[in-house]
Amino acid sequence: MDVAPLQSASADDLSFLDNAAYVEAFAASRAGACIVSAAHAARAPAGMALLVSERPYRAYARAAQTFYPRQPPEPKIAPSAAIDPSAQLGPGCRVEPGAVIGADVVIGARTLIGANVVIGPGVSIGDDSTIGACASLSHCIVGARVLIYPGVRIGQDGFGFAPDPSGHIKVPQLGRVMIHDDVEIGANTTIDRGSGPDTVIGAGSFIDNLVQIGHNVVLGRGCVIVAQVGLSGSTKLGDFVVMGGQVGVAGHLNIGTGAKLAAKAGVTRDVPPGQAYGGFPAVPIREWHRQTATLSKLSRKPR
Amino acid sequence: MDVAPLQSASADDLSFLDNAAYVEAFAASRAGACIVSAAHAARAPAGMALLVSERPYRAYARAAQTFYPRQPPEPKIAPSAAIDPSAQLGPGCRVEPGAVIGADVVIGARTLIGANVVIGPGVSIGDDSTIGACASLSHCIVGARVLIYPGVRIGQDGFGFAPDPSGHIKVPQLGRVMIHDDVEIGANTTIDRGSGPDTVIGAGSFIDNLVQIGHNVVLGRGCVIVAQVGLSGSTKLGDFVVMGGQVGVAGHLNIGTGAKLAAKAGVTRDVPPGQAYGGFPAVPIREWHRQTATLSKLSRKPR
Amino acid sequence: MDVAPLQSASADDLSFLDNAAYVEAFAASRAGACIVSAAHAARAPAGMALLVSERPYRAYARAAQTFYPRQPPEPKIAPSAAIDPSAQLGPGCRVEPGAVIGADVVIGARTLIGANVVIGPGVSIGDDSTIGACASLSHCIVGARVLIYPGVRIGQDGFGFAPDPSGHIKVPQLGRVMIHDDVEIGANTTIDRGSGPDTVIGAGSFIDNLVQIGHNVVLGRGCVIVAQVGLSGSTKLGDFVVMGGQVGVAGHLNIGTGAKLAAKAGVTRDVPPGQAYGGFPAVPIREWHRQTATLSKLSRKPR
Repeated sequence: MDVAPLQSASADDLSFLDNAAYVEAFAASRAGACIVSAAHAARAPAGMALLVSERPYRAYARAAQTFYPRQPPEPKIAPSAAIDPSAQLGPGCRVEPGAVIGADVVIGARTLIGANVVIGPGVSIGDDSTIGACASLSHCIVGARVLIYPGVRIGQDGFGFAPDPSGHIKVPQLGRVMIHDDVEIGANTTIDRGSGPDTVIGAGSFIDNLVQIGHNVVLGRGCVIVAQVGLSGSTKLGDFVVMGGQVGVAGHLNIGTGAKLAAKAGVTRDVPPGQAYGGFPAVPIREWHRQTATLSKLSRKPR
Repeated sequence: MDVAPLQSASADDLSFLDNAAYVEAFAASRAGACIVSAAHAARAPAGMALLVSERPYRAYARAAQTFYPRQPPEPKIAPSAAIDPSAQLGPGCRVEPGAVIGADVVIGARTLIGANVVIGPGVSIGDDSTIGACASLSHCIVGARVLIYPGVRIGQDGFGFAPDPSGHIKVPQLGRVMIHDDVEIGANTTIDRGSGPDTVIGAGSFIDNLVQIGHNVVLGRGCVIVAQVGLSGSTKLGDFVVMGGQVGVAGHLNIGTGAKLAAKAGVTRDVPPGQAYGGFPAVPIREWHRQTATLSKLSRKPR
Repeated sequence: MDVAPLQSASADDLSFLDNAAYVEAFAASRAGACIVSAAHAARAPAGMALLVSERPYRAYARAAQTFYPRQPPEPKIAPSAAIDPSAQLGPGCRVEPGAVIGADVVIGARTLIGANVVIGPGVSIGDDSTIGACASLSHCIVGARVLIYPGVRIGQDGFGFAPDPSGHIKVPQLGRVMIHDDVEIGANTTIDRGSGPDTVIGAGSFIDNLVQIGHNVVLGRGCVIVAQVGLSGSTKLGDFVVMGGQVGVAGHLNIGTGAKLAAKAGVTRDVPPGQAYGGFPAVPIREWHRQTATLSKLSRKPR
């Protein structure tokens, strides 16, 4: 018994159909069982057990988690890890080779510190978290069940300076990064410490790879930030904001709760709660669609 | 005897002219010999030996490789490397200080594992490959003559979860990354493991720095992906696809063999084989050029 | 006595008002003293000491530097650092655990080499510089008072090859990266070595996180490059060029001294000195604003 994609699942496997683009793969699948919406159930091949769900991907996620629950790491402190004597590690932690843990660091129970990770002085990390290989953390407080991927950079100075022709004047960066519980931060993403206030990542937010989060940015709860997004300094997001890949947001803006920004949007003004925006400069998404349709029509090749 | 750019080459050096923007530098160059197309040969300074080629950059590449062939590394296992006893290393490998090699890893002959690299359990790497400093690999199979630059992240979980207001539900990521022979992957690029199927990088593909490749993405052979491109999950590329810098491609799309995407294109639909697309939303490149010309004309300042 | 943001400053703290968006926070602040422009001074709460400045952020930067001057690191060579016997370190250096320093490296006085940093053979670094955790440097010469953030990649091969259907032909990369004094380079930024000439970062330039700088690129003095910018190979910037986030610049272009590129601009031609450009393809900024206004007007929803 296992979970498997439609194309490779066999009679012992559970699969799912969520995206209508894969209906043909569903109709041809050898999966023994499949989670599917009522709308597509009729296309099932003979003999397939159907688990009909209104939200098949969510149902599959829960099922797959049952097959593959997060396991606490096998506790072990690698001899080559450099752990400051003042650091405190909770029970059941695993520290892999080459990890460096600075003075006064506090780490909760069953947390995994990956190989060659660097954790700066005074950092605090909660229970059941994972810090991926080669990540570096400083000036931050990290909650429980946080998943930080390899190469993430948290807590370095933000891009703060007063421009000056005789030499830009660096502004000391004094704040922290607060990462609440159940957050996921993708590979090689960078999150700068606050300049004075803190940078905050709200509970349950999911951040993809190669995202840039500037100093003093605040994310509410449950935000979803796709790869290569850039959030400029001091911008605030409400809860459950969703941003597609490569979105850029200017500094000192407010993005309301539940707002959705289409991929590659360039946001130069506040976005009201619950609104979908797209384009550059970003506008309400229907307006953006009208803009692209208008431009397409006006520039049509004369026949 | 050496190779050198036009501006600094001396009488003992071989240089090349490929880009017409540098014809003046060619005319003033002191290079003893130069690879050049017939069209520009007449501008050569007196006394310069000319190697006339239809494709000067290709000819220069071959000549420069003769001057600077890839050398196998000097074999050595650094004492500070942490190598699991179950790992197998082929003859002539070099493992630099601080590298961490996990259980059941298999590495071919003459492969270089850079300083502070982290290779997770079960990874396999072929002959004559190079893993740059501080890179991390997990859940992947890497071919021969693969060049992975510093800070690359391969094989971490993809951005897979079912969004849910009560807490997004992470979907276990179960696939691998398959990297075929002769691939080059630029610094700090991220390639996620498949969610169920594998993520695949076809033989001879060249990927630049800071590129994001999502789970289940498939690249064919010989693709060229310039810096900061983002490929969303489950998108498939044929062979010899070329993408300029900062292109973004939505998920679950098919980009046909030989397709070319201009820099900064935002691709929201399938691209047929052999076609050149540009703009956002991306359209055939001539259509995009008409769009930008139309908008420029319509918004011309009244005199 | 400390510096603090308007919202959290108390009677012992010095704060500043620079952005008019925060006038209400200024009017309600409990800061004992505040740097402010004459235009906003009248909104100060009773009892606040005012330091009136024409350029409040610059004045605050200088004041904050007085409170938080850069301290030389506490000198120490970690026992787990792997330092080649031929490397030379100046007095007062600090080398943190897991750092790897190659043959013939030369490092000036009071320079900090962070944990798990990798410095390749022959690299030179000046006095009072800082190399952040997990960064890697090769084929480069770094000046004094340079601040390199965690995860930065400097000196790896650029994206140089001759495309060929029978297998792209890699062009040996032979140049260096020259980083002049007082430069700041943000987390996970990548700067490739020159292909033959050098890649150059001029004195006093500030580069943000996740920026890509291709081979042979030259930055003049005092340039400001915001996060996720991509500069293609062989492009030259004059002095004091400013680029907003996510700008992309094609290769072999000249961007004149004092030019400013708005965020997300896509630059396909030379930009004259002192000019502000925006949009994609980038045009003079007023022209771009007319373009977006025109498109907005033409696509307005009929009522």
